[in-house]
Parts: sequence; structure tokens; C-alpha cells
Amino acid sequence: MNLILCESGDVDADGAVTLTGARAAHVRGVLGAKPGDVIRIGVVDGPKGRGEILALSEDRVVLRSELDAAVPAPPAVDLLLALPRPKVLRRLWAQLAALGVGRIVLTNASRVERHYFDTHVLEASTYRPLLVEGLQQSGDTRLPRVSIHRQFRVLVEDELDALSSDGTRLVAHPGSHRSLLTLARESQEQRVLLAIGPEGGWNDFELDLLARHRFGIVSMGPRILRTDTACIALLALLHEALRSSTPSAD
Amino acid sequence: MNLILCESGDVDADGAVTLTGARAAHVRGVLGAKPGDVIRIGVVDGPKGRGEILALSEDRVVLRSELDAAVPAPPAVDLLLALPRPKVLRRLWAQLAALGVGRIVLTNASRVERHYFDTHVLEASTYRPLLVEGLQQSGDTRLPRVSIHRQFRVLVEDELDALSSDGTRLVAHPGSHRSLLTLARESQEQRVLLAIGPEGGWNDFELDLLARHRFGIVSMGPRILRTDTACIALLALLHEALRSSTPSAD
Repeated sequence: MNLILCESGDVDADGAVTLTGARAAHVRGVLGAKPGDVIRIGVVDGPKGRGEILALSEDRVVLRSELDAAVPAPPAVDLLLALPRPKVLRRLWAQLAALGVGRIVLTNASRVERHYFDTHVLEASTYRPLLVEGLQQSGDTRLPRVSIHRQFRVLVEDELDALSSDGTRLVAHPGSHRSLLTLARESQEQRVLLAIGPEGGWNDFELDLLARHRFGIVSMGPRILRTDTACIALLALLHEALRSSTPSAD
Repeated sequence: MNLILCESGDVDADGAVTLTGARAAHVRGVLGAKPGDVIRIGVVDGPKGRGEILALSEDRVVLRSELDAAVPAPPAVDLLLALPRPKVLRRLWAQLAALGVGRIVLTNASRVERHYFDTHVLEASTYRPLLVEGLQQSGDTRLPRVSIHRQFRVLVEDELDALSSDGTRLVAHPGSHRSLLTLARESQEQRVLLAIGPEGGWNDFELDLLARHRFGIVSMGPRILRTDTACIALLALLHEALRSSTPSAD
């Protein structure tokens, strides 16, 4: 963990924070922190800052927090993802949060198997701790918003604008000639919604529906990647494209 | 599998190929192939092509192959990777091969735990099938070369030039100002050797040794990623940078 995240309710009016459970164990065991040490902390969907350790006991750590005035901006990329196999999704949650995703929109598709929806990996009690783990790894506080949609057509036609109205929309599909990097760079928009299909790809109807709703088709070369590999690869590319299209000192 | 790979010894002088085991089961079960069907095949480290199914039985599939004259070029990226935890490495093999790596150089480092070397995940009998699985996913035939090095300094000072002499050398390290994409693009070289450190990063000695052996330090932004996420993200970025620095019709 490169940042210890707490919930806003864990911070009292004086800025004191009490960590319990796995977070307390991590601060004691992995960080080996002692009273007086200062560690990097943050509040889920809130600011980052520093915490001075006041006291440690078997199962709790008390910190005096000093939090930044500003809250980090949410990541500029949203993900529309055909629901992967539960085993794959379980591994993806933390990685998606670590890479930075504002919103994770999970959808049915023709090549998504129906039983993928019957899994506790889709319950907030399972995925929220995994998302928080990813944020703690990468040093962010912004928890991705998650929604689950069983009807692809209803999602794209009726619901998607409310979830992600502005910004560039891209759908990854092997064989397209257009490079994701080029398209993301050319765009003047500050946000991108990226659609990634199931193993086996979107079918023609789905691809056509996406195209009619402003999704530009892009590829990342001739190789066909597994869903989880593709998610990581494409999110990394998009973030890099968005970063390098804004002026920097480099 | 988007390509069924066989070994060169599986192809007889007349171009007939006999598949057995998991590959035969995949052609029968997943592809549902019948005699007369044509599937995409390839030879490990050899050409790709098409195979017409002549006969299927319980445990074998016989094909008539028609192979391309040319063998795909090896991927333009090599990876120098501090040995990850066995569990992580097991998951990485197929993904590295799918993304495309010419050579995987695994090394010790200060923050690599010694027992990571005592694992069957480092035995060719374990990793070769996983690499082949990745190639079959992505549609490539070029098997990454693998070498394992227990002495980081000896590797960098004495062995690395023989493994990967020409080309750009980059080391990923959080906090660097230089973008990997920019550096890879500016480079006139056709090959890149990318070094990725252990969880917790390279130490100062290691980073300095790499810098003195032509490794330019790059980052991919403010987020700190897990080794496996970073490998996938950085390989995707490098391939995209190399692709987009060569002329294309796009």
C-alpha cells in the first residue's frame, strides 16, 4: 500500500483517525510504524494527506491527520466493459482502480454467458474492498463508480448518456485501422469512455449500435488479447494519450 | 485460441499435421471443427498458415497444412524483469507472450525475495506451455526466449550486452519526469529493452547501475502499479509507440 485509505466517517472533528482491522495490521506489520512516524493517508473520495501516528495497539492505530485542501480529480477515463468471467473480474477490480477509471459500466452482450451475472464478485461487499486496494496501491482516493446492466441495447440507447454524456467514445475491436492513441490524441475532449467487448468480441449488431452512438472503432494492433490484458493495456494507453496531449514541462 | 500452434516436428514432409492432447480437444470441442473445415494454424517459431481438417478421432486431429513462406518477425521489445512472486509470474507468462516480447530476462534484485527462485514456475516445463497459450491467444508464433539470472550486477555488467546489445534501453521508475512514450518515440532504434523492478522498486545502487549501462529512466505517470499491471501497461505503451513511429496508412 502506498497510501492508507480511510472512510470519511473514520476522521473525527479534530482530525484524529482510528484504523482497525487489515489497515491497522498493515501499518503495524508491513510499514513497521511507531508512534511519531508519519505515513501517507487519504480519505475515500476525499483528500490525501499525512497522518502522524499517536498510538498503536494490537488491533487499532490512532493517527493525527493533516489533509490537503483539494480532492484529487476523478480519472478522465470511463470503462464500458462486457461482463467478464467472475474469476477474471475478481482479478480486474483492483487493477482497474489502480490504473484509474472514473466509472465502470458492466454490461451484458451476446457473447457474455448468462451465469456470469450470478456471482458475488458483482456485489459491492466483494468489489469495494478490491477497488480500495487498487487505490491504495496507486495512491489515488477516487473510487470508481460501478453499475451493472443486463440489457445492452437499453444501456446504450437509454442509459449511457446519463452515465457518461460528454467526451470521446471509443470501442476497441481487433482489425480496425485506427490507432487508439492517435484518436485519443486528436480528440479535443477531456474525457474518454472506452468500450471493451467480451472474449470472442462484440457481435455485428452490438458494434453497429455502438457506432451509431458515437463510438469510434479503434484497435491496438494485430494482436488479439484476453479481456483482462486488453483492459489494462488500453487503459494505460488512454491515460498516456490524455497526459501527453496536455502541455507539460517535459 | 485464435491460432493453433504445433511444433515443427508435428509437420511431416507432405505438410500433414497431427494434433493430440489439449490442442486436439480444443479443435474438436471449442472450435467444433469437422472434416473439410479450415482453421488458422502456426508452427512455434515458424510460419503461420491454414490447416484443412482431414480427420478427427477421440484424441487426435489430422490436418493438411498450407504454411506461409515468411516467418513473423520477433517482437521488437525485450523485457528485463525483477523476478516477481511465483503466483504473479505464473499469471504473467501467457500475457507477456500475448503482448509480444522477444526475450524475457528474469533477474534477482535487492527487493526480490530469495525463495522466489525456488519454484517450478521457473521451469521450462511449466512456463513453455503458458507462453504457447499466450501466442495462441494473440496469433503470434514467436516464442519469447527466457533466461534467469541470480546476480543482478553480473547480469548488467557482463551478460546483458550478449542478450540484448543494440536498441534503446529504458527503466521504469515512478517519479521520473520523462514519459516512456516520448522517449520511445524519439528513439531512432528499432528495438527496446525495458527494465521493470520488483514490488517496492529498484534500490539506488541498481538504478544507478542501470543508468550507467545506457538505461534511460522513464515513468508512466504518478500512479504506482503492481508489477504485473505495470508489465502489461508498459509493454502495451511501448508496442504502440514503436508502431506509431513507423509510417502507416492511418
